[in-house]
Amino acid sequence: MPKIEGHEDVYEKVFEIMEKHDIECLFYAGGNDSMDTVKMLSDYAAAHGKSQRFMGVPKTIDNDLPVTDHCPGYGSAAKYIAASLKEIIRDNASFGAKKPTVCIVEIMGRNAGWLTAAAALAKGDDCEGCDAIYLPEKVFDIDKFLADVKELAAKKSSVVIAVSEGVKVADGRYVCEIGREVAVDAFGHKQMSGTATMLADRIAAETGLKTRAIEFSTLQRAATHMASLTDINEAFQVGHDAVMAAEEGKTGMMITLDRNGDDPYQCGTSAYDIHAIANVERNVPDEWITADGKGLTDDYVKYARPLIMGELQPLFVNGLPRHLVRKA
Amino acid sequence: MPKIEGHEDVYEKVFEIMEKHDIECLFYAGGNDSMDTVKMLSDYAAAHGKSQRFMGVPKTIDNDLPVTDHCPGYGSAAKYIAASLKEIIRDNASFGAKKPTVCIVEIMGRNAGWLTAAAALAKGDDCEGCDAIYLPEKVFDIDKFLADVKELAAKKSSVVIAVSEGVKVADGRYVCEIGREVAVDAFGHKQMSGTATMLADRIAAETGLKTRAIEFSTLQRAATHMASLTDINEAFQVGHDAVMAAEEGKTGMMITLDRNGDDPYQCGTSAYDIHAIANVERNVPDEWITADGKGLTDDYVKYARPLIMGELQPLFVNGLPRHLVRKA
Repeated sequence: MPKIEGHEDVYEKVFEIMEKHDIECLFYAGGNDSMDTVKMLSDYAAAHGKSQRFMGVPKTIDNDLPVTDHCPGYGSAAKYIAASLKEIIRDNASFGAKKPTVCIVEIMGRNAGWLTAAAALAKGDDCEGCDAIYLPEKVFDIDKFLADVKELAAKKSSVVIAVSEGVKVADGRYVCEIGREVAVDAFGHKQMSGTATMLADRIAAETGLKTRAIEFSTLQRAATHMASLTDINEAFQVGHDAVMAAEEGKTGMMITLDRNGDDPYQCGTSAYDIHAIANVERNVPDEWITADGKGLTDDYVKYARPLIMGELQPLFVNGLPRHLVRKA
Repeated sequence: MPKIEGHEDVYEKVFEIMEKHDIECLFYAGGNDSMDTVKMLSDYAAAHGKSQRFMGVPKTIDNDLPVTDHCPGYGSAAKYIAASLKEIIRDNASFGAKKPTVCIVEIMGRNAGWLTAAAALAKGDDCEGCDAIYLPEKVFDIDKFLADVKELAAKKSSVVIAVSEGVKVADGRYVCEIGREVAVDAFGHKQMSGTATMLADRIAAETGLKTRAIEFSTLQRAATHMASLTDINEAFQVGHDAVMAAEEGKTGMMITLDRNGDDPYQCGTSAYDIHAIANVERNVPDEWITADGKGLTDDYVKYARPLIMGELQPLFVNGLPRHLVRKA
């Protein structure tokens, strides 16, 4: 939605359509941009005596909405990222010492490093995990990065590094912008990609090491076959509770997930004022990033692990996961 | 292995080591390069009166060994590729008509298009499938490709195209070589990658359409969580039958999978002379590529579908597929 001032006609049109179709409440599922829309529409309704209600339902793999403990979508994306990284790490190590390879894996997240942080979940007694994880919350120093890679490659033949598409150098430029143009999407956001390729090329040029750049691209938001059952259940939970809240007459609010405990893990929900949520981007807290800036603490893992638990084994038809069919 | 002439010392060393450790038979699991090694070692043994035996065990996601109906590894890689493409196609279509996107997905396969052909398996009554599939078996015409994309984009807002990393233009250059240098690996093979990026950039430049390049990279060979149970069972079958054949005194042979029927699908095995197999690369047959060169026929699907059937649901521990742990 455009801002209210100067676009009153657009807002009036929305209410006119809602009136026409007898829509009492609009539930908007999404992330920051969507919650901003909920705020503006509910503000307009309040200012102009409209009875229609507007409820936000959190849903973003970016996990960057404030107040809520986490956002539906994140657990499933994190599960896919961690599971795929385990496979990439195993593959990369299979070449042995004769062919040391530095693999740079680029993960989504323009400003918040939540998705990249999920790389930390790969580590376990069956997987050594990533050798370094770089989040956009920390300034990225290319020279320091190259020195880190050289040090790692001197010690081990297989190096796998996770890096956010949104890492920036000290002057504020995205790493992927350095030396090439970047496209801008419909929201005016710069289209990220190419960070891993740029870094892999730099490593190869400066060290002669074999490198590989991998991007999860859209699969990290689309790979429903690796969804977290906890995540799926919570997505239903926030949707259900948004309807309940609207039934009670609430408007201009978003449903939040409130963690009640880790052992057993359990979340309740609340309806929270949208003004405290819209346009606030929640980053990975500094205390969850290790002091060297290249990893996540155990507290992050304790936070994120419950979110990836449980599986919904897809129904396989003809050897492939079955998708819902849209009725024409 | 180097060729025999001039490297007799290397060969003698192999036999010396086998003698020392009382190894009567070497089983070599792999693809074309591995079968060439089996041929040379068994030829050397025959020429020099050595008693050691050498058996080839087919294992290559490239599926390009001759004589055998297919190769273990292919079914699982094909299943991952088709399952992931279904998710990419659904994701790409979710933006609707307002934001038409052309997505180019690059799939492994230097010379043989088997892995890329697996893109054809995505199509079903819950998925419209890829809009075009380009194999390296056919000369790639960039101008024709751009015209095809324009035609598709004029008709539908979501276009997803699968393309082999190994597609070549008429003068023999790989598409990804055009306009940039390509690294060479330890076998002297050119390191492919960047085909999708190159094509996506060309489309964007010439049409102004939004484009996206996706590479499955190492996940198409490493994503064991999406393995085909048929494939896993057959991998055990060829390994078992190689041991049986060696017990019978056979050498210089590879185990082949021989299809006995499609309904029900069933494969037996044979031991086949390695000389008819080594250094022969099997491509996707011309009659399985559609006349327009942009798709696969139903006969290919009939061939490949049984190979992706069945699942081995991974054991999940801490929310992630458990991997085997190497004993130190």
